[in-house]
Amino acid sequence: MDAEKLFDLNQNVEGILIYNGTESSNDPSFFYFTQLARGLFEGSYVFVTRKNLKVITSQLEEETARSEDLDVEVFTSGKQRDDLLKQVTKGITFVGINFSGLSHSDYLSLKEKLPDKEFVDVGESISSLRQIKSERELTKLREAAKIVSKVGEAIPNMLKDGMTENELAALVNYEMMKNGASSPSFDTIAAFGPDAAEPHFSGGKRKLKKGEVVLVDFGAKFQRYCSDMTRTYFFGKPDKEMQEMYETVFKAQEAGFKAIKSGENGKVVDGASRKVIDSSRFKGRFIHGLGHGLGLNVHDHPALSPQGDFYLKENMVVTVEPGVYISKKGGVRIEDDVIVTKNGAEIITSAPRDLQIV
Amino acid sequence: MDAEKLFDLNQNVEGILIYNGTESSNDPSFFYFTQLARGLFEGSYVFVTRKNLKVITSQLEEETARSEDLDVEVFTSGKQRDDLLKQVTKGITFVGINFSGLSHSDYLSLKEKLPDKEFVDVGESISSLRQIKSERELTKLREAAKIVSKVGEAIPNMLKDGMTENELAALVNYEMMKNGASSPSFDTIAAFGPDAAEPHFSGGKRKLKKGEVVLVDFGAKFQRYCSDMTRTYFFGKPDKEMQEMYETVFKAQEAGFKAIKSGENGKVVDGASRKVIDSSRFKGRFIHGLGHGLGLNVHDHPALSPQGDFYLKENMVVTVEPGVYISKKGGVRIEDDVIVTKNGAEIITSAPRDLQIV
Repeated sequence: MDAEKLFDLNQNVEGILIYNGTESSNDPSFFYFTQLARGLFEGSYVFVTRKNLKVITSQLEEETARSEDLDVEVFTSGKQRDDLLKQVTKGITFVGINFSGLSHSDYLSLKEKLPDKEFVDVGESISSLRQIKSERELTKLREAAKIVSKVGEAIPNMLKDGMTENELAALVNYEMMKNGASSPSFDTIAAFGPDAAEPHFSGGKRKLKKGEVVLVDFGAKFQRYCSDMTRTYFFGKPDKEMQEMYETVFKAQEAGFKAIKSGENGKVVDGASRKVIDSSRFKGRFIHGLGHGLGLNVHDHPALSPQGDFYLKENMVVTVEPGVYISKKGGVRIEDDVIVTKNGAEIITSAPRDLQIV
Repeated sequence: MDAEKLFDLNQNVEGILIYNGTESSNDPSFFYFTQLARGLFEGSYVFVTRKNLKVITSQLEEETARSEDLDVEVFTSGKQRDDLLKQVTKGITFVGINFSGLSHSDYLSLKEKLPDKEFVDVGESISSLRQIKSERELTKLREAAKIVSKVGEAIPNMLKDGMTENELAALVNYEMMKNGASSPSFDTIAAFGPDAAEPHFSGGKRKLKKGEVVLVDFGAKFQRYCSDMTRTYFFGKPDKEMQEMYETVFKAQEAGFKAIKSGENGKVVDGASRKVIDSSRFKGRFIHGLGHGLGLNVHDHPALSPQGDFYLKENMVVTVEPGVYISKKGGVRIEDDVIVTKNGAEIITSAPRDLQIV
């Protein structure tokens, strides 16, 4: 994390206060700044200046926080917490906060706690910093990608006639954790046959039958950093349409990889891949963006989509995941994680991508 | 969901607009209103009036949304989405929104999208409705509790000399999913020996040794509703202090159960349990609240804590989870889920609670 850069981008800001709320309203930037790999830290703050970084947390997380080389203040009551906030921001007027990282009610409550401050939104600056990964972050992302790759290779051996989607998802999660994931980075999608026509399918009672397509979309968290991979397998020989669907999506993904390089526009990359599908019989069936950033969130910035007008930079990490979906029939998606390099894309997920009939 | 009640509580409000953002900033109230058991629905809205409920979502979730008996509008672009928002709120001035359910930047963006509206915070009303569970919700919560209970019974058989905490967590998650959970309701905590001294321990590399305490805190999601249970086992005979710790926490939990009934104050319940620990040699070692609400979030309202000045009502669902933690030594926590009844507490998690030496 490069705090200097953040302050250079926001000249009037004297300190940055990040609040990590609760499960539905948390700010991964808290972990971006602290790089705390463990703990929940709900209701905790980090206060960052050009020179210092201070974690303000409850007794519940004290042991975890102190296990790292960090400056930690611990509160045991709401009053103590509010006093600490006043104390660390003393003498400062312009406080940067992340408007996207806290709920509107937490924003109002912060204004009440610190009535004499001017809050400046540094959310965009943090987001743009977070998009470019440091070596430390890349190491974690590579490890997360390695875990899903290993599991992806093992999935064909997991498929059994009559197994449910839930059973497969449970196995995939188990293998990810056994291989070092702290948790899945999102609810694993395992979809058989027509269920694969829903890009975000969840449910899982369907039993696997010969001739069905098997779409598995899964990710691993390693020290909070997320991978995300999709593989589509065929349990028995697919019909011609499904086979063609696979080949089309495969080519669309190749086109996506090829278009990626530092300096390229995100929507050009999306377009290069989309063109392959839209000039096939599956025109219009690619109903989502080509990809998304990866980092502390699994759907992180930037998004690769027809609307995503931005320029790729070295060490951004994004997914490339074209898909085709036909209601009641099925779907195919192939998704890999790549690091943007000067002249191209380094694919960090390595499980086989070609058509696999199990 | 009882929309009538919500409008009775907020007389000037003509319609309620709930926005479900992304993973770090989502509003479970979206699912409270829609009761959609499947799908992700990021960036989706539900608009509720006294008579209607309309889901506004993208193509990505269309198939999932249409599979339920709901009024659904689908957008394929940001402009279409904004037009839909204008259209459904047409003729309405006072729009209720959930200040705790959307980020400050999403709030500002909503104001821009609908400049002629007056936004009223209905977050508190929604929260108080969500605290009292309907029969439909209780059915889901009971099922979620059944899953963890079954797995809790099986844990003693999972413990093996030399296994890592991560391996145990992976097994627990696998068993929950095999028993019908869509996912764990939070990252499973498995802590051995001194690691059990951190209430929110995460990490997981420690290998199990004879004589160590094993604390497992885990929850299941069933149709989005969460259970949450902790069991503490002894892998080999514990020393006297740990045994006494267990007995003290056990008694504290009993006192908590006994204090619960409709009409009782939350902090009285917390106090009844805390007194047991604070009048033992473990005084001051119970460093968190007694419990929290359960529902669509695993840490939901209301909280049972020394600060929690509110009155329990029938069909609230809360955890009761006293704990004692001694740094470098270990910890004991016992946690169960209960439904508040007219005259007491119905414990819905059923795994054995007495001291178990494996």
